[in-house]
Amino acid sequence: MKALVFEKGKLKLVERPIPEPAEDEVLIKVNLAGICNTDLEIVKGYQNFQGIIGHEFVGTVVEANKGDKLYGKRVVGSINLPCYHCSNCQQGLYNHCLNIKCLGIRGKDGAFAEYLTLKRENLYPVPAEISDREAVFVEPMAAAVEIIEKIHIRPTDKVLVLGDGKLGLITAMVLQAVGLEVIVIGKHREKLAVLRDMDIQTFRPGEFRERVQVIIECTGSSSGLETALDLVQAEGNIVLKTTVAGKNHINLSKAVVNELRISGSRCGPFVPTLRLLKRNTFPLEEMIDSVYRLKDGVTAVERASQKGVLKVLLENY
Amino acid sequence: MKALVFEKGKLKLVERPIPEPAEDEVLIKVNLAGICNTDLEIVKGYQNFQGIIGHEFVGTVVEANKGDKLYGKRVVGSINLPCYHCSNCQQGLYNHCLNIKCLGIRGKDGAFAEYLTLKRENLYPVPAEISDREAVFVEPMAAAVEIIEKIHIRPTDKVLVLGDGKLGLITAMVLQAVGLEVIVIGKHREKLAVLRDMDIQTFRPGEFRERVQVIIECTGSSSGLETALDLVQAEGNIVLKTTVAGKNHINLSKAVVNELRISGSRCGPFVPTLRLLKRNTFPLEEMIDSVYRLKDGVTAVERASQKGVLKVLLENY
Repeated sequence: MKALVFEKGKLKLVERPIPEPAEDEVLIKVNLAGICNTDLEIVKGYQNFQGIIGHEFVGTVVEANKGDKLYGKRVVGSINLPCYHCSNCQQGLYNHCLNIKCLGIRGKDGAFAEYLTLKRENLYPVPAEISDREAVFVEPMAAAVEIIEKIHIRPTDKVLVLGDGKLGLITAMVLQAVGLEVIVIGKHREKLAVLRDMDIQTFRPGEFRERVQVIIECTGSSSGLETALDLVQAEGNIVLKTTVAGKNHINLSKAVVNELRISGSRCGPFVPTLRLLKRNTFPLEEMIDSVYRLKDGVTAVERASQKGVLKVLLENY
Repeated sequence: MKALVFEKGKLKLVERPIPEPAEDEVLIKVNLAGICNTDLEIVKGYQNFQGIIGHEFVGTVVEANKGDKLYGKRVVGSINLPCYHCSNCQQGLYNHCLNIKCLGIRGKDGAFAEYLTLKRENLYPVPAEISDREAVFVEPMAAAVEIIEKIHIRPTDKVLVLGDGKLGLITAMVLQAVGLEVIVIGKHREKLAVLRDMDIQTFRPGEFRERVQVIIECTGSSSGLETALDLVQAEGNIVLKTTVAGKNHINLSKAVVNELRISGSRCGPFVPTLRLLKRNTFPLEEMIDSVYRLKDGVTAVERASQKGVLKVLLENY
């Protein structure tokens, strides 16, 4: 099969044998996969990953144990593979397993290929109402749902999303869908335009000066937290979604004086995300910059690396 | 009356008229007052406060409206005086009132004097079982109780207190008293010795390398948060108690990757603190470095400013 492999510092399209599913796994034919910023980081050497990259996908189960109900089903998959034995797993902190494997990121070949294998327990059937071009967004959307899994946002709170990148836009959509008042501050008029029909207020940096109860920091920049500290109300919540390389130069005294809560948040739950996608219409089509064939994967990753580009997909039809 | 006043950049003992209580206030004769690091900051210009400093006190109500049950009672007092009208007060965020006055810190003369006035609603009678030398610790102790007012610490969690200053020691005592397993990392053997009979493990920096669920940062140093980020478990809590001037140079990516919660916390509730003091024995006597007469207040503040000095008290008998 064709597969997009990162090896010895280089990304290339290679031929690989179709993988054999282990006892607790199934074989999935990839329909559509999405390029995420983490993939771009891996290609720069992050995590020292060697192998098939990619972790956002929707596919079809084409090989499974006899009688497996997932056989033939369209599925999306959560990416973390905990060991269930380490001290963190024993405390139920599976996503922080000390020996964690992570699809296309750590110790496990990923989804930028014709086929992939994954544990049954990581898979979720996709309802017929959800198209492949929507389902491919489940993984990043779940990361937005994780915000309300981690902290309580009250229906009367105002939520400010900082950043209009992929994660910022998806976060705004998800929080709007669960009934919250959402405001987005972003630098790019054309990206903010994705949200235009969603009853979400958008502002350019500096234009919005109110204080709000909840801020979701999705800027991917070290200045994002500083802005958040300036715009959050006393006893408010700041959720950090993006990791920033290098040290921040910030004064966290404001967090003490104003008794703030700052929470880090990463991957999220698929079941409520699929429910949201089934019940709501999101302008995800507008998030799609381009769709490349898997064989043009290297070019697709280059495209995704360009400034201002939203979601680049890889198709495998 | 004698009063310790900070005015035009100088701390001095002056003669002032005994203050007149307003309609909703009472007049309190100060028995004992404690010098806090905030007082030392004010004397360096923090908050631009001009007036009588001091906010940790125990006193006796000597003038009140007819029939007031507080008359003649020994009391401690919470220090925040919200306006009840601003947008924060309207949301119940009284400690973050935009027009807040704060005893001996902002807009209201403080406790380093023979007498002070304070609103009835800020006062709490001191049970007979609690001595003046214990009661004078209620205000800083309440700040430690505020930690468990703000975040949920499970009985099975390990709690690490960073710092062996006044706040670190008091925090360790309070969290131990509510049944938690407490570990303290501090630089000073003689300060850590205060905790020796308390079933609290103490370590010097670098000696403790386990990961714990909860860390209380009381170092007053910008490196404290960095240590906390290294020693906290995934999905753990870091509580920031001390403010640090200047910017921290830290990488908060760990907070995202490990999905941490960082909470700022300040003043706390007096009622549960008085309950704790009544039911438990704390080695507060060992926290007392020295007791000065009010007339020697300037010398007392100088003593409190010296490195390694724990609590300095001012007596007014």
